[in-house]
Amino acid sequence: MKHSRNLFSRLAIPGFALGLLFASCSRDSQPVATSRPIFGIVIHGGAGAISQKNLKPEREAAFRAKLAEAVTTGHRILQNGGTSLDAVEAAIRILEDSPLFNAGKGAVFTSEGTNELDACMMDGKTLKAGSIAGVKHIKNPISLARLVMEKSRHVMMVAEGAEKFALTQGIELIDQKYFFTQERWDSFQKARERESQQEKQPKPSSGLFLDTIEPDRKYGTVGAVALDKAGNLVAATSTGGTPYKRFGRVGDCPIVGAGTYANNATCAVSATGTGEYFIRLNVAHDISALMEYRGVRLEQAANTVIKEKLTKLGGDGGVVAIDKQGNIATPFNTSGMWRAHALGPDGKAVTAVFQP
Amino acid sequence: MKHSRNLFSRLAIPGFALGLLFASCSRDSQPVATSRPIFGIVIHGGAGAISQKNLKPEREAAFRAKLAEAVTTGHRILQNGGTSLDAVEAAIRILEDSPLFNAGKGAVFTSEGTNELDACMMDGKTLKAGSIAGVKHIKNPISLARLVMEKSRHVMMVAEGAEKFALTQGIELIDQKYFFTQERWDSFQKARERESQQEKQPKPSSGLFLDTIEPDRKYGTVGAVALDKAGNLVAATSTGGTPYKRFGRVGDCPIVGAGTYANNATCAVSATGTGEYFIRLNVAHDISALMEYRGVRLEQAANTVIKEKLTKLGGDGGVVAIDKQGNIATPFNTSGMWRAHALGPDGKAVTAVFQP
Repeated sequence: MKHSRNLFSRLAIPGFALGLLFASCSRDSQPVATSRPIFGIVIHGGAGAISQKNLKPEREAAFRAKLAEAVTTGHRILQNGGTSLDAVEAAIRILEDSPLFNAGKGAVFTSEGTNELDACMMDGKTLKAGSIAGVKHIKNPISLARLVMEKSRHVMMVAEGAEKFALTQGIELIDQKYFFTQERWDSFQKARERESQQEKQPKPSSGLFLDTIEPDRKYGTVGAVALDKAGNLVAATSTGGTPYKRFGRVGDCPIVGAGTYANNATCAVSATGTGEYFIRLNVAHDISALMEYRGVRLEQAANTVIKEKLTKLGGDGGVVAIDKQGNIATPFNTSGMWRAHALGPDGKAVTAVFQP
Repeated sequence: MKHSRNLFSRLAIPGFALGLLFASCSRDSQPVATSRPIFGIVIHGGAGAISQKNLKPEREAAFRAKLAEAVTTGHRILQNGGTSLDAVEAAIRILEDSPLFNAGKGAVFTSEGTNELDACMMDGKTLKAGSIAGVKHIKNPISLARLVMEKSRHVMMVAEGAEKFALTQGIELIDQKYFFTQERWDSFQKARERESQQEKQPKPSSGLFLDTIEPDRKYGTVGAVALDKAGNLVAATSTGGTPYKRFGRVGDCPIVGAGTYANNATCAVSATGTGEYFIRLNVAHDISALMEYRGVRLEQAANTVIKEKLTKLGGDGGVVAIDKQGNIATPFNTSGMWRAHALGPDGKAVTAVFQP
């Protein structure tokens, strides 16, 4: 078992280094007017307290295989001249359809035993964005977010309203049973037991309402950012939210500028982590603003926001980001972040989970 | 009638200029260690196509009087050493309780004849924020947003979830009848007639879903920003949303970074206008980022984002903003924006509506 994990690690490290090398080489190139067109896609499957010791090799292999499938699918679309919009949507739908990630099929349960999903997409060319939050009957939230962006005058729609809009667009509403997975249900039961025990304890005297939050923070929001051959950047994120969440809580994923942002002038960013901190810092937009206003490179901008600002405020998580030259950055301040990228004509899918 | 309006204009212009002069004088001072403590509050009651010709003097007088009452109440709190949190909450509650503005009591109707309110508050000292969207039974949404910020672990809560949280905090849920005003109901009926006529027209061939939006854009979101004697900045915004809105649409008001942002290092901003554009540009955070990363002054930062970026993208509206030195900025690209400020020990309430 150990051998298998090490094999993956060995495969991942040089591949990742190769990816960075490619990105580094492309820094001074023009995004379109080159004989070797610059394009690529980077995805994530969530960040958190992923323990190298406790991660079972077969589980790691399953995550890496699904990430590779998603990133390869997105890359193929870019390779064939498709748009970054199509690439990120296709990649995220694959992750949404997998029970492994906390998005779509694998969404966690709320404190009421329901599933409430959020998603967001932003087009860096037009700065158009579409976002949905708290939907319960949408199989692929990312596709609905795209429809909000492309077929409505609004940017954000929530709950039943978003589902009514879905019906006008020919999207079928599915039964919540679709989102049942034994693993998420078991976690939900554990959280319920924990809460029941907490309720027997005296309330904190501060008057602060302490909502129960699943301490096991390894469930993963999914996201993708891409640069297509036409030089257009797109960012997208999809999530089932915080496990055992209450009160119609909305995290950073559907908040334009917090969990998702794209601007052809700078970069495309998709985030994962403790959403409240990402909202307060406007993480995705802040990375873009650092590039726009201070002229720093993508990697430095992303590191500043994640490793300095986010860490200082007490938040945890990370981002995947790509700029208009095809440079990528994937900083995170947790022990792990599931991620993968496929860049340029080579397009080798490179997966990774722990700190480089 | 004309005389009355001109009298107001004459009063407003020198007062406003005085305010700017005060702000300008205080630019090089330290916010706390001065014998004349720098503090102040700026509020708005919405921007839009307010026509100088069609605005009845008695209506203008009513708006100005309510704005003056709100800004004076907030200023008194600051004057007495209170916090900017208390000042903006008190000011906004007064505007929410008035039927004149599109927030609280005067909220517009959705396409379903209901009222759905949003609000947000952000504390520049801690970067903590609280936001609610789509609540239907909360008399003063701004106070619930503050409770989300101070008494929960979350930043944003929507719809029934936010109301359940309100109950845990001792906030009473009120009957929707409270929000009935004849004026808003008449506008709702007109919008319904317009829609019914539109439905008889052939659908647009583009496939774009054109949601009916009230063409009369003078309803006003309300907002306030303040700097207290301790040097802390706070921003807050409250709205009834877009008239005749559908699909659980969420605008910029409850989106941290779009309609509301505060950071002691830079400024506090509250926005009003076509919310979708404010979300796509992250207007409030973008003004802060321009100050933080490019070192420009508040007025230049706010003008760049509203008069250049927002206008270029096709959005309309404006912001009120204050920085840590007590400088203020109130740019808007519409014909009017209801606004008022009261600054420093003088604290004279200065109201304005049209372009300076």
